[in-house]
Amino acid sequence: MSSVSTKPLVGIIMGSKSDLPVMQDAVDVLKTLEVPFEVTIVSAHRTPQRMFDYAKTAADRGIKVIIAGAGGAAHLPGMVASITHLPVIGVPVKSSNSIDGWDSVLSILQMPNGIPVATVALNAAKNAGILAAQILGTSDAQTTANLIAFKADLAAKVEETATEVEQMTF
Amino acid sequence: MSSVSTKPLVGIIMGSKSDLPVMQDAVDVLKTLEVPFEVTIVSAHRTPQRMFDYAKTAADRGIKVIIAGAGGAAHLPGMVASITHLPVIGVPVKSSNSIDGWDSVLSILQMPNGIPVATVALNAAKNAGILAAQILGTSDAQTTANLIAFKADLAAKVEETATEVEQMTF
Amino acid sequence: MSSVSTKPLVGIIMGSKSDLPVMQDAVDVLKTLEVPFEVTIVSAHRTPQRMFDYAKTAADRGIKVIIAGAGGAAHLPGMVASITHLPVIGVPVKSSNSIDGWDSVLSILQMPNGIPVATVALNAAKNAGILAAQILGTSDAQTTANLIAFKADLAAKVEETATEVEQMTF
Amino acid sequence: MSSVSTKPLVGIIMGSKSDLPVMQDAVDVLKTLEVPFEVTIVSAHRTPQRMFDYAKTAADRGIKVIIAGAGGAAHLPGMVASITHLPVIGVPVKSSNSIDGWDSVLSILQMPNGIPVATVALNAAKNAGILAAQILGTSDAQTTANLIAFKADLAAKVEETATEVEQMTF
Amino acid sequence: MSSVSTKPLVGIIMGSKSDLPVMQDAVDVLKTLEVPFEVTIVSAHRTPQRMFDYAKTAADRGIKVIIAGAGGAAHLPGMVASITHLPVIGVPVKSSNSIDGWDSVLSILQMPNGIPVATVALNAAKNAGILAAQILGTSDAQTTANLIAFKADLAAKVEETATEVEQMTF
Amino acid sequence: MSSVSTKPLVGIIMGSKSDLPVMQDAVDVLKTLEVPFEVTIVSAHRTPQRMFDYAKTAADRGIKVIIAGAGGAAHLPGMVASITHLPVIGVPVKSSNSIDGWDSVLSILQMPNGIPVATVALNAAKNAGILAAQILGTSDAQTTANLIAFKADLAAKVEETATEVEQMTF
Amino acid sequence: MSSVSTKPLVGIIMGSKSDLPVMQDAVDVLKTLEVPFEVTIVSAHRTPQRMFDYAKTAADRGIKVIIAGAGGAAHLPGMVASITHLPVIGVPVKSSNSIDGWDSVLSILQMPNGIPVATVALNAAKNAGILAAQILGTSDAQTTANLIAFKADLAAKVEETATEVEQMTF
Amino acid sequence: MSSVSTKPLVGIIMGSKSDLPVMQDAVDVLKTLEVPFEVTIVSAHRTPQRMFDYAKTAADRGIKVIIAGAGGAAHLPGMVASITHLPVIGVPVKSSNSIDGWDSVLSILQMPNGIPVATVALNAAKNAGILAAQILGTSDAQTTANLIAFKADLAAKVEETATEVEQMTF
Repeated sequence: MSSVSTKPLVGIIMGSKSDLPVMQDAVDVLKTLEVPFEVTIVSAHRTPQRMFDYAKTAADRGIKVIIAGAGGAAHLPGMVASITHLPVIGVPVKSSNSIDGWDSVLSILQMPNGIPVATVALNAAKNAGILAAQILGTSDAQTTANLIAFKADLAAKVEETATEVEQMTF
Repeated sequence: MSSVSTKPLVGIIMGSKSDLPVMQDAVDVLKTLEVPFEVTIVSAHRTPQRMFDYAKTAADRGIKVIIAGAGGAAHLPGMVASITHLPVIGVPVKSSNSIDGWDSVLSILQMPNGIPVATVALNAAKNAGILAAQILGTSDAQTTANLIAFKADLAAKVEETATEVEQMTF
Repeated sequence: MSSVSTKPLVGIIMGSKSDLPVMQDAVDVLKTLEVPFEVTIVSAHRTPQRMFDYAKTAADRGIKVIIAGAGGAAHLPGMVASITHLPVIGVPVKSSNSIDGWDSVLSILQMPNGIPVATVALNAAKNAGILAAQILGTSDAQTTANLIAFKADLAAKVEETATEVEQMTF
Repeated sequence: MSSVSTKPLVGIIMGSKSDLPVMQDAVDVLKTLEVPFEVTIVSAHRTPQRMFDYAKTAADRGIKVIIAGAGGAAHLPGMVASITHLPVIGVPVKSSNSIDGWDSVLSILQMPNGIPVATVALNAAKNAGILAAQILGTSDAQTTANLIAFKADLAAKVEETATEVEQMTF
Repeated sequence: MSSVSTKPLVGIIMGSKSDLPVMQDAVDVLKTLEVPFEVTIVSAHRTPQRMFDYAKTAADRGIKVIIAGAGGAAHLPGMVASITHLPVIGVPVKSSNSIDGWDSVLSILQMPNGIPVATVALNAAKNAGILAAQILGTSDAQTTANLIAFKADLAAKVEETATEVEQMTF
Repeated sequence: MSSVSTKPLVGIIMGSKSDLPVMQDAVDVLKTLEVPFEVTIVSAHRTPQRMFDYAKTAADRGIKVIIAGAGGAAHLPGMVASITHLPVIGVPVKSSNSIDGWDSVLSILQMPNGIPVATVALNAAKNAGILAAQILGTSDAQTTANLIAFKADLAAKVEETATEVEQMTF
Repeated sequence: MSSVSTKPLVGIIMGSKSDLPVMQDAVDVLKTLEVPFEVTIVSAHRTPQRMFDYAKTAADRGIKVIIAGAGGAAHLPGMVASITHLPVIGVPVKSSNSIDGWDSVLSILQMPNGIPVATVALNAAKNAGILAAQILGTSDAQTTANLIAFKADLAAKVEETATEVEQMTF
Repeated sequence: MSSVSTKPLVGIIMGSKSDLPVMQDAVDVLKTLEVPFEVTIVSAHRTPQRMFDYAKTAADRGIKVIIAGAGGAAHLPGMVASITHLPVIGVPVKSSNSIDGWDSVLSILQMPNGIPVATVALNAAKNAGILAAQILGTSDAQTTANLIAFKADLAAKVEETATEVEQMTF
């Protein structure tokens, strides 16, 4: 996956435009990790046919991993996973109509045997992006290198704040 | 809906044959209330195309109400409701892979605005059957009469056990 | 149900006037779907006799479906369902004294065998209105047509935002 | 409340005869505490009129306290409390159709302002009986004496097992 | 309990002064119902000896009912109930350190057999006051009359808002 | 990944041998899908050094995906993910010391930003295996073909039971 | 703390003899770690005075750490902690009257500021024993040595089962 | 532990600097109780090696007790406890990405047999500090004296507010 490639490898979808502020974190981290992606709105409940079409055609269009975010009775990730053979990452979104996020989490996580969804933490679109990169990294050395650098950066930032805190006067 | 009709008005579907012992209660009460029905297996996750086809064609085949039972990340009722304009009754099933039924309940109940599912209690397929009859009863006098008799019978049985208990020596 | 009819077919009740901002969504969607309705306050706990009278007389007054919203230990939908043979739709309201809405949901949803309440999502009065229309649509072609148009409109709006998002620069 | 009185002061009601094994503990402790009582079945949902009549007439029949047990969407204690001015003690029953007892607890406990139910622990009919005696004890010296003796007995039994355990070899 | 009496019959205690805004509702309703009361702070955890002394002496000082409010691991109501034979009403307070009130509710409600606490809804100090009056009303005609008037007033206010809502244009 | 390869691509680890009956499902489905794997016990809490060594060396040994199962305060998947850059799939196990599985689920799912764990449903080791194959399938045509066949087989089995149920007499 | 000492340093108490099968694990591990202890029954609710006396006198009798196990509305650990300045370890017991252990956990864990209880996992009396030894180990070299050996043993057992599993044929 | 000592006996660590406002309470109370401490940032997930090193070397550096605060899938306290033989106190932090704190609590509390974490209430860093002092107090008379004074002060403050409240006019 060369850095000049712009053909999307990751499809980021969400049930509603109101999920975009949460899902933006997936966009941002995929840019950091230099993984090409596409973004659109696909509602399992309001546009079931569009959802079917998206899931059916994703692999043929070159998509390797799908990230799907949804809230409440969040059926989008699981339904997409039922239609495609690609790995699907589910982001439970704590939407305004959710019961503290429990419905979003359980509707995405508790898939029946046969149809997995790789679920990340509530609102954790950033982790969905990283996981997508990790999946692509299993066969792409550059992405792996980017991930290793990303992890090193995370650690460096903690070391930095640790030094700050150690020098504080309590 | 004459009593000689056998054309099904209620479609009872469930995600797996293992849900049948629970869903049988819907069958039984619809027979009691003389409402014709059909029963089959439709899995949102393992047979998404079959689910689409069932939901798309139900109204044209004369079905007036759909009862859908499912457990865990239970997407069947909500997805069927997203495709058909018919009222859909959801029965959360406490399946073996469920977290005490919470996932089944929330996945069915917490539908987004625009796409309701009429949810009944955990495992309450009997109530799903009664609710289907109540829906049909809004335009069918015989079903209404059957429901009124059914309610009277429930009350009579309580009165009977009340008398029994009042005569017990404590 | 001709569009000139003003005789209410749906009775919208709620336990307290403080539930009205939530229940207004049922009103609005029924107007969109051209279903005539009535609205009033009926408290199971503070006006039990009024609740009995409302439930007892609703069918005779021509009401076909009752939508009842309540919060906390929400007994209104279930008690109304115990008295009438009409279908009752319950809207769990996340009132100020509720424990995150769980009490409202469970008090309405978990009805015993024999007395169903068609429960919708927390605060989902809009879905209660749509469900009421779906129930009436089982015997009224105009309402069915309105529902089909409503569903098409939902889909169109998603397609629109999808196009917007696809044209954004990330 | 003389010891020869047999006129019931406590009314024990429950939604179904299947609640009797749980509610029997209230019976037993009231006998121990020499408080006269009556027992019957009253279902809020299946016999709403009977429930109304019971609650309306209880005070006039000499009942001073009502103990009401119910499970699932347990409306009996709250509805009885809405009709009578007597104190009502609610026993959440972990019935077979309950979601681990949470629905029973919340449906009884979370009553709105104005209509209290004195809720005891899940299945704690024994405590409901003791509480009823405590309420009567506020104006009856013999009952108070019985309660004081009961408490002393509880303590003595703990002391006894404490001695047993202290003498065990570990 | 004549209206000129000022000897307190109800003891209102709470674990911390920060609970007072919640517990004030008990004060207010007892004044409305003309039941004399006292108010103080008693912390089970920070002043265990004071708690013991309060509970031990309450009956002898003429207190008939104790209302105890507490949040988090709320031990005050249960511990007071373990020491006195008086009825104890527990008010779970949703304090700032509580996990959404669940800890407060369960710590007060789930008392072991032998030691009941009459638990009311989360933050429902008003209902605690009404329940205390109902308990006293079992032997005091004036308090009963006040309760009956209070209930009538609740109903009248609902009827009023019902009329308002019925006259609104939707 | 030719079918003659025996070099493991998936590492299956679990916190205790008592997790093996659950984790066996991952083994079985990987065999069905012809994905080579290895299995061992690694306890984050009892053998933290072993856990570090396993996670540090996995990529160099040719492992592409790690499946980690654990129960209770399940730290194994998250800690392994913190050390390796490989994708880690977490299987929450409902172990005997778990609070209904909630601790296992939340300890694995709710990872902080930067360190994802691809979480599957409670006890869903089969789905972990399928997900691992899907990840490998993003760069291996044979595994993709096996997954497509596997999905077709799932659908066929549902169709079969559907036919059975449709032929039953109710 | 020489190995010949028999003067108890850890006091193990529990609310009821029915908690002994759970609390036995604390006994057993303290014997393994050669920490002298005493065991008795102390009920916060049924023997509040005994509880006070136990907590008040423990330090003077030479007890250094108290382990208290209780279920339901589990007040014993917190109340003992309110009276003594010694560290108190709380063991939430999943007793028969508990709501899946949540009440036991929250009643012990959620102590207010000022009065900590060192809470261990549900039913984890073994961990309570180890923690007591760790506390004593902060000033006793032999106990520390025993703990280090205990940890090494735990690791060795995992390594053993790891080898077993690695040699299995899957 | 003389008051002039500055060699830290308690190590306070947290997963992120954003936890510092919560963990500051541990700092403050340890200063009040005159217990020397150190503070730094150690992330189990972003700096696993740093976490290992911290835990491995703590005892040798003279640390007697470790206080570890973390939120979400909070692995820091448990992982530190897996590496050191010192007592570890866990503070569940209700961080912004937490599901109402449940994940933080369960990830810290529900440790497997063999590896205890002394868990305190959600956000209760103050109690963690007091518990650390209690642990050190088992072998240090001055710290014990400070704790006894601290407890007396807590009681005195309650008595003061009690007097205030008793003098209020309600």
